[in-house]
Amino acid sequence: MSEYIVKPERPGGFLDFLPEDYLAREKMLQTIENVYRRFGFDPIETPCIEFKKTLSGETSDTGKNIFHIKHTDDDEPLALPFDHTVPFARILAANPYNARSKSGIRLPWRRMVVGPVFRADSPQHGRFRQFYQFDADIAGTSSMIADAEIIALMVLTMDELNVSNYRIRLNHRKILNGLSFLCKIDDRSSISQKIIVCELMRILDKLDKIGRKAVFKELTRAPESPDDPAPHLSEDAISKMDAFLDIKGSNDQKISTCEEVFSGIDVAIEGLSELKEIFSYLSAMSIPLTQIEIDFSIARGLDYYTGPVMEMELTDAPEFGSVFSGGRYNNLVSRFTGKELPAVGASIGVDRLFAALNHLKLIDRSKQTVTDVMIIRIAPDHDADYLKMAHDLRIAHIRAEVCLVEDTTFKRQFNYAISRGVRYIVICGENEFMENKVQIKNLSTRQQVEIDSNMLVDYLMKELAKKTENEPTSEVATAS
Amino acid sequence: MSEYIVKPERPGGFLDFLPEDYLAREKMLQTIENVYRRFGFDPIETPCIEFKKTLSGETSDTGKNIFHIKHTDDDEPLALPFDHTVPFARILAANPYNARSKSGIRLPWRRMVVGPVFRADSPQHGRFRQFYQFDADIAGTSSMIADAEIIALMVLTMDELNVSNYRIRLNHRKILNGLSFLCKIDDRSSISQKIIVCELMRILDKLDKIGRKAVFKELTRAPESPDDPAPHLSEDAISKMDAFLDIKGSNDQKISTCEEVFSGIDVAIEGLSELKEIFSYLSAMSIPLTQIEIDFSIARGLDYYTGPVMEMELTDAPEFGSVFSGGRYNNLVSRFTGKELPAVGASIGVDRLFAALNHLKLIDRSKQTVTDVMIIRIAPDHDADYLKMAHDLRIAHIRAEVCLVEDTTFKRQFNYAISRGVRYIVICGENEFMENKVQIKNLSTRQQVEIDSNMLVDYLMKELAKKTENEPTSEVATAS
Repeated sequence: MSEYIVKPERPGGFLDFLPEDYLAREKMLQTIENVYRRFGFDPIETPCIEFKKTLSGETSDTGKNIFHIKHTDDDEPLALPFDHTVPFARILAANPYNARSKSGIRLPWRRMVVGPVFRADSPQHGRFRQFYQFDADIAGTSSMIADAEIIALMVLTMDELNVSNYRIRLNHRKILNGLSFLCKIDDRSSISQKIIVCELMRILDKLDKIGRKAVFKELTRAPESPDDPAPHLSEDAISKMDAFLDIKGSNDQKISTCEEVFSGIDVAIEGLSELKEIFSYLSAMSIPLTQIEIDFSIARGLDYYTGPVMEMELTDAPEFGSVFSGGRYNNLVSRFTGKELPAVGASIGVDRLFAALNHLKLIDRSKQTVTDVMIIRIAPDHDADYLKMAHDLRIAHIRAEVCLVEDTTFKRQFNYAISRGVRYIVICGENEFMENKVQIKNLSTRQQVEIDSNMLVDYLMKELAKKTENEPTSEVATAS
Repeated sequence: MSEYIVKPERPGGFLDFLPEDYLAREKMLQTIENVYRRFGFDPIETPCIEFKKTLSGETSDTGKNIFHIKHTDDDEPLALPFDHTVPFARILAANPYNARSKSGIRLPWRRMVVGPVFRADSPQHGRFRQFYQFDADIAGTSSMIADAEIIALMVLTMDELNVSNYRIRLNHRKILNGLSFLCKIDDRSSISQKIIVCELMRILDKLDKIGRKAVFKELTRAPESPDDPAPHLSEDAISKMDAFLDIKGSNDQKISTCEEVFSGIDVAIEGLSELKEIFSYLSAMSIPLTQIEIDFSIARGLDYYTGPVMEMELTDAPEFGSVFSGGRYNNLVSRFTGKELPAVGASIGVDRLFAALNHLKLIDRSKQTVTDVMIIRIAPDHDADYLKMAHDLRIAHIRAEVCLVEDTTFKRQFNYAISRGVRYIVICGENEFMENKVQIKNLSTRQQVEIDSNMLVDYLMKELAKKTENEPTSEVATAS
């Protein structure tokens, strides 16, 4: 058919999931989804292609790594979303609630979404260029109850994934905004204070990667041109910043020291007060506060955050970076409506988390296949009978397949069943057909029983229900 | 934040799924997936971006509507897959089984995949440009057992979706290949017989749309240039084609008449014999043959089919076209390996099927939300207590949310709970807090009970387990 051979390659940064990986990841996703739904987050889905204008408007560090679609007949250029938050904002803006027709989205709205997002990094970079994000967001309330629930969601999700060693770092954008007053950053003739503060955040976000000294060097750099947003901090501002970054102690101590540092700067005091409110809610829910740490150094890159921001890392696998992060963003919908709409949420980097949990051996990789029963074909001319057996089992919701190995010796078929990880094989040769019997072999215990062939379905239903009491794998086990 | 307003638009041909649609479609997908897994199809996932070279090589009618990614740093151009079959072939080619290391894909391989595919149609066209396909394929066997199982899969899937009015049309590419002998199509100096036969198939595929007369007109058209693949059939060939398309009667009658028409043309006789074998297997499985009809006019556009081909339409909604179709393709992997690998499979056009079943009112749209219980906040200063209630319920796997409506009058919160489709509300005012009581109202029956607040979790667990006996919606109902 083809005149030339194409190499069966996959571009760098993209993943295939073969059955063993798929089933392991599916179980992790199912666990996460169950927790999200317990919080009342309703699922939605948005497409893998949006108008470029919908996605753009971000800070340069996300704007530049968008995959763009080559020219189409559309009025506007198309692109692939780099997160689920921007399409979420589009949906909110496009579906305002109409009290008369009772249509549209009624606020507050809790929604979850899981699916791929795309980052056009260089293929040499070794980063995922497509990965799943699993988001939960609450739109339409500025109550800190919502922010506390997002943190509770992070904690409960880790509990259900049997991950106990994690750390959630918490900060508040209003405190960081207070820094502009502390450091006396004003509008410059050609560039607004807001842009300079954004640049300040972007530089602070690098603290973990490049260290305080390098960050300070960037912060003091003089602008090279009128539109260079370099914060250009004074020596006095840097010493205040140093004192700020030196704040240590328990969460309570950090908050009270910070209240002193920012005394008289209303916006920061407001942020600190909101953090205190969040902690009171977390205590009421008996959330273990030892794993939640105020860290004034985290800023998070995306410029849409306006309130609390949080990042979770796994303390046994810090090299994987932040696996679950989020924050409050009250401005994002205004891109589409011109009006603020308060929202808060968090997102799991699913494929990063999966890689980290795999590394920590916390992923259940026990399932290689969905098939529970394999029908061995050893009697020639009985193919129709073997198919009938499989069909009867399937009608009874048992996962069964006819062994289609081309070499129909028993040994080959047996080895195939073993290598596939199937749990039972059904053996029926000429003798068994004559006597209306069938042999069933349990491949874990290697026990073999002979039963009347009309008992096949009943027998396997009972066996599978028994086997799956602890871990449901078949519909048989969950149908009751 | 943004200086200008972006319209919250979605490009044409792309869909959003809001919770009610999402939950209805999720249920349909779960039903399909359960059936697929009963046949032993193991799930995989491949990325939304592939090398363009992997996807190309198809006939012009699929090649031209691929979404291409704008230039990246990759060595090869990138594009979005238009189906799951080509990536499946890539995976098969890239992971040959290694008996020594026991790695790679052991054949035969049954795999399923569900996810988005992309077609770069014009946005004005009104077609989906992104839609889910749900595929099941068996690679590594040429046995007609596999082809029969694919048809059984189609039938069982419809049974589980409660769809009884459908028709599966079945043909065999080898019979169509026999047409080239019947019509005496030979190599021409500048163009091979194979290309001309492909063109013949492409034209025949339009029978349903444009009718026999228009098809014959296209078939007799003389080539306009040396590389024009026009089949250019003679009058004699057209009359044979006419006789062939006239074949009528039961499936058995069609097969025997066809055997006469193609007497002496081996390839067609082989195809007919394979169809007979498939029917013998379908009979053994008691598949209702009245809904399966041999139709020599269906060809299916994609040129990778080599054996049986099948298409299902819903007889009550034929305007939606084919919703489930497939066939045998023994050559596709050779694009990557140079060697044939037999494979057969079928694919559901998920979003088309969902639209059709919606139209037929066969979609369960009873769920608007995942939330079962809503905690109403009527006592000021008790937010931490309300959060604790929600948290206790969530720990017990009950789906609960705290009502975050900004106006905390009872009436507003009650209306919100009603409009969200929640099943129970929990009411606890100052009095109840003082007496350690709590009110629970069932929003379907409007019954309200007062219980001790420490019984809240137990009471709701029992209520939800009762309510969900028939239709599990909460983990509570499925956890046992």
